Amino acid sequence: MENVILRDVGLRDGLQLVKAIVPTEHKIEWCRRVVAAGVPEVEITSLVPAKIAPQFADAEEVVAATLSIPGYLPSALIPNARGAERGFALGIPKLNYVLSASEEHNLANIRRSTQASIDDFGRIVELRNETAPKTCLAAGIATAFGCTIQGEVPEARVYEIAAELCGLGADEIIVADTVGYANPAQVKRILTGVMKEIGDRPLLLHLHDTRGLGLANMAAALEVGVRAFDASIGGLGGCPFAPGASGNINLEDAAFLAEATGFATGIDIEALVALRQTVETWLPGERFAGQVAQSGLPKTFAPIHRQAA
Amino acid sequence: MENVILRDVGLRDGLQLVKAIVPTEHKIEWCRRVVAAGVPEVEITSLVPAKIAPQFADAEEVVAATLSIPGYLPSALIPNARGAERGFALGIPKLNYVLSASEEHNLANIRRSTQASIDDFGRIVELRNETAPKTCLAAGIATAFGCTIQGEVPEARVYEIAAELCGLGADEIIVADTVGYANPAQVKRILTGVMKEIGDRPLLLHLHDTRGLGLANMAAALEVGVRAFDASIGGLGGCPFAPGASGNINLEDAAFLAEATGFATGIDIEALVALRQTVETWLPGERFAGQVAQSGLPKTFAPIHRQAA
Repeated sequence: MENVILRDVGLRDGLQLVKAIVPTEHKIEWCRRVVAAGVPEVEITSLVPAKIAPQFADAEEVVAATLSIPGYLPSALIPNARGAERGFALGIPKLNYVLSASEEHNLANIRRSTQASIDDFGRIVELRNETAPKTCLAAGIATAFGCTIQGEVPEARVYEIAAELCGLGADEIIVADTVGYANPAQVKRILTGVMKEIGDRPLLLHLHDTRGLGLANMAAALEVGVRAFDASIGGLGGCPFAPGASGNINLEDAAFLAEATGFATGIDIEALVALRQTVETWLPGERFAGQVAQSGLPKTFAPIHRQAA
Repeated sequence: MENVILRDVGLRDGLQLVKAIVPTEHKIEWCRRVVAAGVPEVEITSLVPAKIAPQFADAEEVVAATLSIPGYLPSALIPNARGAERGFALGIPKLNYVLSASEEHNLANIRRSTQASIDDFGRIVELRNETAPKTCLAAGIATAFGCTIQGEVPEARVYEIAAELCGLGADEIIVADTVGYANPAQVKRILTGVMKEIGDRPLLLHLHDTRGLGLANMAAALEVGVRAFDASIGGLGGCPFAPGASGNINLEDAAFLAEATGFATGIDIEALVALRQTVETWLPGERFAGQVAQSGLPKTFAPIHRQAA
């Protein structure tokens, strides 16, 4: 029995496009309850400038209140070296840096070339080594399966970026279908290719369900050996710079998929569904996706006991 | 390049639970447009008694008007020998008989044992041989992946039923996840097992997306060699005797999955989306699922040209 890590990115990706500013105390309750439900890792906030994303103006308070919750790995998104400095100062154990394999998406999103973003990651690693050597630095490759702006993204470029990020000192590689273009055949091919480049470094797959294939893509990735995935409560989420991008894969359904196919997640799916119902009351008018919350678990379902790491 | 057959069951399964009675002329337009969009097979109606399902009281008129549409294979559901007689009299080229592998579901649904339903299929085959020898008889095994009433359904029983139906003269076997309990690992195992029993007879998989795994299950089935699937426009559908069962897999998204992973469906997905928008105006208040209709096709998507059969 193998473990699968499902990371809730609802507090970051999930809140990026919602209309309401979620009060800090609700974010803290969200984190506390998702950890209590057994989710082993949570992206607790985004360290983008508050003027760009007012939703994350309370990042410092959220971090202060959630870092002390026992039993999970907190992480935060960083867009650049300034974000990294904030993250190091706050003592967040893991930071997620993201760049786009699509030049045009990177330009739209961070206003510079992909290579400039790769170089920036090198400076962030140096800074980490000098000031916060225990911090885990994950590097994400967005639009790895295609881009709504540019269209095709060469697979060879994705592999090249993965190798370069590892060479610069990435502790983990995240591959992201930012705009929901991926299909299961492509997922198997690209993830297998990335795994060849990154050796035994941890790998995490970030999927969106924009065209309905989110969980089919997760199932395909499980088959080729991927064991860590981003997902969000209620399938919230979307990239402000990826037109038409809808939510992340749904955390409740992703946990069901993993457990039903024989992987231990440690997650109490019914506790997640209860949390989702609370979050729905905080975000009136937002679209909540996912089927297990509506239909319940099968009578035949039995959760798998997580193995000690 | 292999072909995949997607059959629209929206006019049958899709209309089983909707509140409105869809006017006959709308059903005919639906069939005409889904065929014009390239869908090769359509379940045009259900030959259950009108007093049980008033939605299908116009079955005779629908059949009369749609049988002459060129370029597709029409079929209809039959619940028993009386339904078969109606189907033979109407000259429908293919009839779909369904029984449940779950004893309790069969009792709730058709008020008799699974074995009695199997025996009934034998009588239907005899009747076909005597009165309508050119009619194709498909036999469906519902609740093949578990049952909301009974819970577990023994896999050995599914294989036994498949073999028995073939022995009685079934021209095609349909395996159905009536209540949306299936997961990709189980789909691969059970479909592989069924294929061993039925030899070179055509096999069709009927999936529901009740717990979010519909398209993941379709992707898994494609991997083990299944090449025909039921789906419905807008993901409409549900079994009145399967509590909590929600819609069939979405036809637009299923076509995208098949084409994106290298299978030719012959379907113009954008024409399907346009039809869905029309059907939405006919069924106000119903839940329409599926992502491609909301998000559009990827910029990187190119349909695959169907091979001549």
